[in-house]
This record gives sequence, C-alpha cells and structure tokens, in this order.
Amino acid sequence: MTPFVAPLDDILFSLHHVARAPLIAAWDHDFAAEIGKHFAAFAEGEIAPIDEIGDQEGCRLENGRVRLPSGCKEMYTAYCDQGWPGLTAPGEFGGQAQDALILAMTSEIFSGANHSMQMVTGLVPGAIRTLLNFGTDAQKDRFLPSLASGETIATMCLTEPSAGSDLSRITCRAVPDGAQWQISGEKIFISGGDQDISDEILHLVLARTSDNGVKGLSLFLCPSTKTDGTRNAVKVTRIEEKMGLHASPTCQMLFDGAEAELIGEEGRGLAAMFTMMNHARGDVALQGVAHAARAYQIAATYAVDRVQGRLSDGSSARLGQHADVRRILDVIDRYALFGRAMTHMAFVAMELGDQGALVEFLTPLIKVFCTEAGMRSAELGIQVLGGYGFLREYRIEQTYRDARITAIYEGANGIHKRMLATRMAQGPSADAFEQMLLEEGIEADALVKWQSMRAQTANHADPAEMAHRFMQASIDAMQAVVHKRLSDCVEAHPDPDRIRRVLALDPEPWRGM
Amino acid sequence: MTPFVAPLDDILFSLHHVARAPLIAAWDHDFAAEIGKHFAAFAEGEIAPIDEIGDQEGCRLENGRVRLPSGCKEMYTAYCDQGWPGLTAPGEFGGQAQDALILAMTSEIFSGANHSMQMVTGLVPGAIRTLLNFGTDAQKDRFLPSLASGETIATMCLTEPSAGSDLSRITCRAVPDGAQWQISGEKIFISGGDQDISDEILHLVLARTSDNGVKGLSLFLCPSTKTDGTRNAVKVTRIEEKMGLHASPTCQMLFDGAEAELIGEEGRGLAAMFTMMNHARGDVALQGVAHAARAYQIAATYAVDRVQGRLSDGSSARLGQHADVRRILDVIDRYALFGRAMTHMAFVAMELGDQGALVEFLTPLIKVFCTEAGMRSAELGIQVLGGYGFLREYRIEQTYRDARITAIYEGANGIHKRMLATRMAQGPSADAFEQMLLEEGIEADALVKWQSMRAQTANHADPAEMAHRFMQASIDAMQAVVHKRLSDCVEAHPDPDRIRRVLALDPEPWRGM
Repeated sequence: MTPFVAPLDDILFSLHHVARAPLIAAWDHDFAAEIGKHFAAFAEGEIAPIDEIGDQEGCRLENGRVRLPSGCKEMYTAYCDQGWPGLTAPGEFGGQAQDALILAMTSEIFSGANHSMQMVTGLVPGAIRTLLNFGTDAQKDRFLPSLASGETIATMCLTEPSAGSDLSRITCRAVPDGAQWQISGEKIFISGGDQDISDEILHLVLARTSDNGVKGLSLFLCPSTKTDGTRNAVKVTRIEEKMGLHASPTCQMLFDGAEAELIGEEGRGLAAMFTMMNHARGDVALQGVAHAARAYQIAATYAVDRVQGRLSDGSSARLGQHADVRRILDVIDRYALFGRAMTHMAFVAMELGDQGALVEFLTPLIKVFCTEAGMRSAELGIQVLGGYGFLREYRIEQTYRDARITAIYEGANGIHKRMLATRMAQGPSADAFEQMLLEEGIEADALVKWQSMRAQTANHADPAEMAHRFMQASIDAMQAVVHKRLSDCVEAHPDPDRIRRVLALDPEPWRGM
Repeated sequence: MTPFVAPLDDILFSLHHVARAPLIAAWDHDFAAEIGKHFAAFAEGEIAPIDEIGDQEGCRLENGRVRLPSGCKEMYTAYCDQGWPGLTAPGEFGGQAQDALILAMTSEIFSGANHSMQMVTGLVPGAIRTLLNFGTDAQKDRFLPSLASGETIATMCLTEPSAGSDLSRITCRAVPDGAQWQISGEKIFISGGDQDISDEILHLVLARTSDNGVKGLSLFLCPSTKTDGTRNAVKVTRIEEKMGLHASPTCQMLFDGAEAELIGEEGRGLAAMFTMMNHARGDVALQGVAHAARAYQIAATYAVDRVQGRLSDGSSARLGQHADVRRILDVIDRYALFGRAMTHMAFVAMELGDQGALVEFLTPLIKVFCTEAGMRSAELGIQVLGGYGFLREYRIEQTYRDARITAIYEGANGIHKRMLATRMAQGPSADAFEQMLLEEGIEADALVKWQSMRAQTANHADPAEMAHRFMQASIDAMQAVVHKRLSDCVEAHPDPDRIRRVLALDPEPWRGM
C-alpha cells in the first residue's frame, strides 16, 4: 500500500506557472505554499488514513440516523479545530477569506486523500458563496458563522426519482407558512443527507413554488434544527449501496412539511442553485485530477520497485523500465497535469472577474475532461500493477470504483456535452474561448479544426447531434493550449524531465465516452 | 434489474454469416442453434440467477478448504447432469466431440451469465485439449472421462510471487520420485485452486525440472487425490480479496512435495502449457465480448423505459431518444459485435487447421481488443444509467468490476502488444494477416497505414517501443475487415437496422490502454 502524499509541488507549479495565478493581484505564492504545506500534512496524517476503513465499513442507517465509518468524526473535529471549513468565508463571519485558487489546492488534496469525506464536507464553500450572493443579512448572520466554524455542514438537494438531469420535472413542493415555508416531497442521491460528524446540517433544497417548469423552482435553506430548537421534519428513508464512495452516505430523503427559508427570489431557484452547482462542478473536476494524480502515485511507486522481465541486454528489469509501462505512466501523468492545468486556468479566469463567458465555456469542458481523466488513470494504474491492481490491498481498485461516479454527478457528462453544443456553440462563451485560443497562439491546424467544428455545430439543425464531436474538438483545442503553456514553463517545475516526457508523448486526441 | 438473456441470435449470426463457419465442413447451423438454445435456457434459468448472490457472498477459506457461495454446487451438478463439461471431449471418453465454434457459443453465454463460475469451470476444455495433444494413453484414460463427466475440474498453475508475466523466473520445483514426480513451491493467483463443487481437481502445474530459464520448465498433472486414494499435498494458504469475480476463488497455493505426473516432454512445459493458454486466451476474449453484450443489454433496456428530458418539439423523451445516449448505446453494441466477429474469425481460422500463422497473429489482437471492449462497454453502460449505474441493485457495476481483470490475466494486454511487435511484426504471422487484409479487400488507405506501421515496427531497433502503435494499427485494420464483413451480411441479421446503425457510427480508431 502506497501512503498518500499530497502532490503539492505539482499543484503550486500549475497554479503559479501554468495557470498564471500572479495575474491575480491577491496571489501570494509563498503564502499559498505555506497553507498548502499545512493542509498536505493534515491530509496525509489524518484524512488519508481513514479512507480504507471508510471503504470497508461503509455507512449505516440506524433508527433513521446515518452513522459514518470509524474515524470520520475524529478527523472532522480536527479539521474544524484547524479552521479549514471557513477557508473561503469572510473574516467577519469567522473565516479566512481565501479565494478559489487556495481552495482549489486544498480541495484537490482532500479528494486525493479521501474522496468520500471530501464529498461529505465539500459543499460548504459553495453554500457560503450562495449565501453571500443571495442571502439576506439575517440569513448570513444566522448561517455563515456555523458553516465557517464547521458546526454546520451543507448539502445540495436537487435530484428526485423522476427528475435527474431534467430539473423541470421536480415535484417537491414548498408552501408559505407565515414568514417561513414548508417543504414536502422526496429527494434522492443526496450526498451527506445525514451524518454524525457535524452538529447541524443545512440543506439547500430546490423546490417547486408554482407549476411553471424550471421557472416555478425556488431555492430554500432547510436546517436540520428548526428555529424553535426542535428537529426539523427531514428524514433519511434509505441509503444507497454503491460501487464506491462507501464512506459518503447517499441518501433518499423525505421532507415532510419541513421548515425552510426562501433564499433569493421566488421562481429564481435555479439561478441561485447554479452558484452552488458551478462551484461543485469545478470541485468535481478537481476530484478527477486528484484520482489521476493518486493513480499515478500508486502506479509509479509500484513500477519503481517491482522486478519484472528483462531488458534487451538480458539483465533484470524494473517494471517501469519497459517501454509500454513507461508510456502508460506518462499517460496517467499527462491526465493529471493537463486536467489540473485546465481547471486552474478556469479558476484564474473566474478570479479575474471579467471573464465570465470564458468560465462558462470552460466549466463543462473541465468537468468532462477531468472526470474521464480520473477514470482512465485509475484504469491504467490498475494495469501497471497487473493482478495486484485487482486486489483490495493495493487500494488502486478503490480509486477505480470511487472515480467512476464523477462522470455522472454534478451533471452527467452527456449533459455538459449537450450544453456546450446547444447553448454555447453559437454564443459569446464560444467567442471568448476562440479569443483565448488566438491569444495563446496554438497551431493554426488545431485552431482551424476547432473553428470548423464550432461552425458545423452552430449551424446544425439539431446541435445536440454534434454534442460529442464539439466537446472532442474543444477539449483537443484546450489540450493544445495546455501543451503550449507547459512547454513554456517546463524549467520552473522541480522535475522538468518528468514534464518533458509527458510533452513528448504521441498526441492523443480526446475520444471520451 | 435486467434479467440475463443470452445473445444467441447475435452469436449465430456472427458465427455463420460474419465469420463464415460454413467454410468448415462439420458446421451445421441448425444443430448449433439447437445446442445454443439449450445452453441459453440453462444459462438464463440456472447460471445467471446465482451471479448476484455469488458477488455478495464471495468465497471463504475454512479449515484449508475453499467454500463457494450459495447455489454454486447445485448449479454445477445440473451442468454436469446435462453433459456440458464434456462438450469438446471425444466420444470415446464420454464427451460430445464438438468443436471450438460450438464451445465459443456456450462459453460466451456462460461468461455473460456468470463470469465467476465460468472462470471456475472454464479451463476444462483447454485441459482436455492439452491431454489429447500431449498426454500418454494412460493419462488420457485416467483423466479424460472424469473431466468430461464433470467429476474433475481443471486449474492452470503458472504464476508465482516473483513470476507473473515473466515465466522464466518460476522457482516451483519438480523432482523425480519413481514413476512419479514431487512438486514443491508456491503458486499465486490460481483461479479455482480449490472449490467445493467438483469431487476432484486436476492442477496443470508448470514447474522447474532444471535451471535453464524457460527451457527448464515442465508441465505436470497434479490431481487433488493421489494414486493411493489419499489427499495430495496441495494446500490453499489464502484467497485474495478482489474488486470483482467474488465467486471465483483466487488462491495462493502451496505444493508441498505433491505427487504429480509429467505431461509432454521434460523441459518442454511451456509448449504444452501454450495449448491450454491459447485456449484460455480465446476464452478471455469471449469474456470481454460477453461483458460488452451484457452491458448493452442492461443499458439498452434501461434507455427504453426511462423518461428523461424532452425532445426538441418539447414532448417527453425516453432516455434512448437523446442523440448522445443513442450514440453511446450504438458504440457499446459495436464493441460487442466487432469483438465477437474478430474472435469468431480467429476460431474459424483455427478450425480450418491450415491457418496457424494467422491464428497466432489474431490471438493477441482479440485478447486485447475484446477485453478492453468489455471494460469500455461496462463503463459506457454505467453512464447510460446515470446515478443508478453506480448502485449495486442495477448490477452493471458488477459487470464493470468483473470485466476489469480480463485485460490483466492470461497475459496482461501489454505483454500481448509486446509479443505482436517483437515476435510477429517481422515474421510469417504478420504475412498471413496482411494476406487476409488483401483478400478481404479493405480500403487502400487502411491497408497502407497498417503496412507502414508494420514496416516501422519490424525495422525498429527496439520493436518493443512500437508495441502500442503496432497493436493500434493492427486492431484498426481488423476493425476495417469486420466493418466490411458486417456490411456484406447486414440483411442476414434478424434486426438489420441495429447493425446499420452500428456501421454508420463515426469511425473510432482504437486507442486502447
């Protein structure tokens, strides 16, 4: 078993040199490195060690309450004591007021150490952002301090049995009840819908306030404890048995006239929820990156140690000295480096503030590329270990199982492909992407290929038919950008030879699912 | 949960029309259909229903003996009563004397119904073939009847802790002991190394008779019961905890001076073992095909029923009506159809008897293509089901877990790629493949591409460096052959529209791991 080591050098290199974080006035490399070092130590020492037992024990539903596996509560308490839940909350609410780049660093490390626990705790920054953007002062005062301290963990309640990718089918209802609202209905696939590590849970619930498709949806704050101090009418009716993420309880929930507050405008729930969802999508991209990096770590470590076969001169070989194994390791490394670079570039664009159109285009792109990169890397990593990769004890099979969900949740990848083709190919976000391709100076061939595919998509009678091909072309263009940016800063990496090996690989057009 | 239905029509179409089984004098389509119908009914009614409980219960090691999950013994007894173990054994030993094509049909159906149990029982035909090719008359008389009746199940004992892909490192020793031999040493990753469904087990063990690399290896027959009727000194010391194939016990075994008979010549163990291994490799290719077909079945059934989103006219859509979902289903279908076609073509070539060079080239190719096709299909199938695909109850996650091992065992795919490049690119088997490409009349472009890659590989200072690219080019050429053959017989399929949809997909060059 290869202990988890946070890929901190790679992350800092990616933020600073590849994604060019210094463009952001507030960026302080040394400070980032310092925070990163602290979080890496915590992740390696406290978060990663409970990942295996979490996978084995799984969650239990006992008397209507969810119990997480051994060690989760203790780890979470230490996490709160160190102040991590409030990393992005404003100082006035007890937070550290850090930006998305610092969060990208800790979030990726967390996911690499323990994807399940990152799922349970990871929606807090998105909830904080949603409250800051849409909450009243009273709501901010009521909820932000306890989110920042870790006393409260947030959930996101969207999906229903008949409303998965299509939110217009949501039937969960909210009716006014004085200054409050009452929510009734069923939600499914709610990560951390209940748990026993935080005192309180704040559910962000999308519910119907009128029969008007998605325009009849509003967003609600539904805390586990009512204003009168009694327990709210929110019940977990079942937890799912899943292939992976065993320590993250996936809950079926019944809201039975639960007390809730409207956040944002009535009928504008989707807009408010998108703040949370877009945060979550960037986070999911980083989960993919984290799995790719972890797969690389396990496989590369194994390949250095394992004696296998012989070199052409007849002497004993280490596994990693075989051409095809070396190639596979470099391919995994590329997935991690390229996925991280793209995601960090999207985050830098987001922090710059005036690049909303570009961020809109990059969000589905990084979600799709990074999640599939994580899956592919776990698959390749298992292959490097051979038969041992299929065994539980080497733990890369857990990476394989855990990574699989990332291409499904936060918008199945097919939905993102469809959005890119139907909503963006014609509009300003594709213009912004094209502008970036021009500024980055990728090769003319690659540029023309993307432009032609964009035109075909935009002019197609049903652009959805072009969804897969347009995503392929867009990812390939983005890979060209990353290739160029990495080439320009190879020497800034502590191990430039590793980067050079990745850049020298045969170009691999993205096929995707 | 979608009940398993054997893809019998597809299999018969593939054997008869695509792979052109009528070239073989003994082929009788109606008889094959009749046998297929019987086996399909047995697989659907008896083998498939214990697949889920097998996955959940797993195997146990109790007092040195392995216990399979509930229902395995009863299923195996019925399997023997119907005479399936002896399908390919000669009539004089109690068998049905059927050929590799009939076996390809039952074997694929078995793997689709229950990969684990197919693993436990599936080496018998290879052992029968090995005994027929290398055994003495006494050995045939002693072992063939009980293999044909099912009283005995065979295992293949190759791998050791330090000898995985590299058999020259085998240290397990055999020393003469009168007319018998004694085997001592450790073997790992032995599928069905012990079980409680057959009375006897016959281990085919590769052991060292001299210190001369692979030339010091000999093959032995090592039965679980000695000639004096007492239990042989073969002990299971541990069973592995794996990601999948939970009902197939993967055993670590200790041979402690176990009584054994030499089969074939001393020092020629590898040659004898290759009979068994080549059979197993074709079988593994069919496991990949079976997983692809099963993934298609589960995903296509789900996509027909599930209401999701809307069509462009605003009406409710079924999942399968969305362009990208339809594309994914067709891609899965293509993996199954193409993989099955290639494998059947290799089997027809084998049965024709004078095409050994072609079979040698096709064996690594089908092993690699079909196993990765099975993995990719399970991955895509999960995606079609969305969140439900990640849940145990829809059972496609089991396909995903079980399929993963196929790219590893029976020669990791990287080893097959390496063999193709280093041992075949220059020789007669590549000539035979080229000859076939010419005869099949694939497009000039595709042909030239393969020829050029072959020349690059053959002339490379270290052909192993070209392994991945040469396999890619060879599989793409083979895909062109299959595309052509399918195009020529579309109308012979009961659902020609389905085949046409697959043939109309964007061509997908094989990337592979």
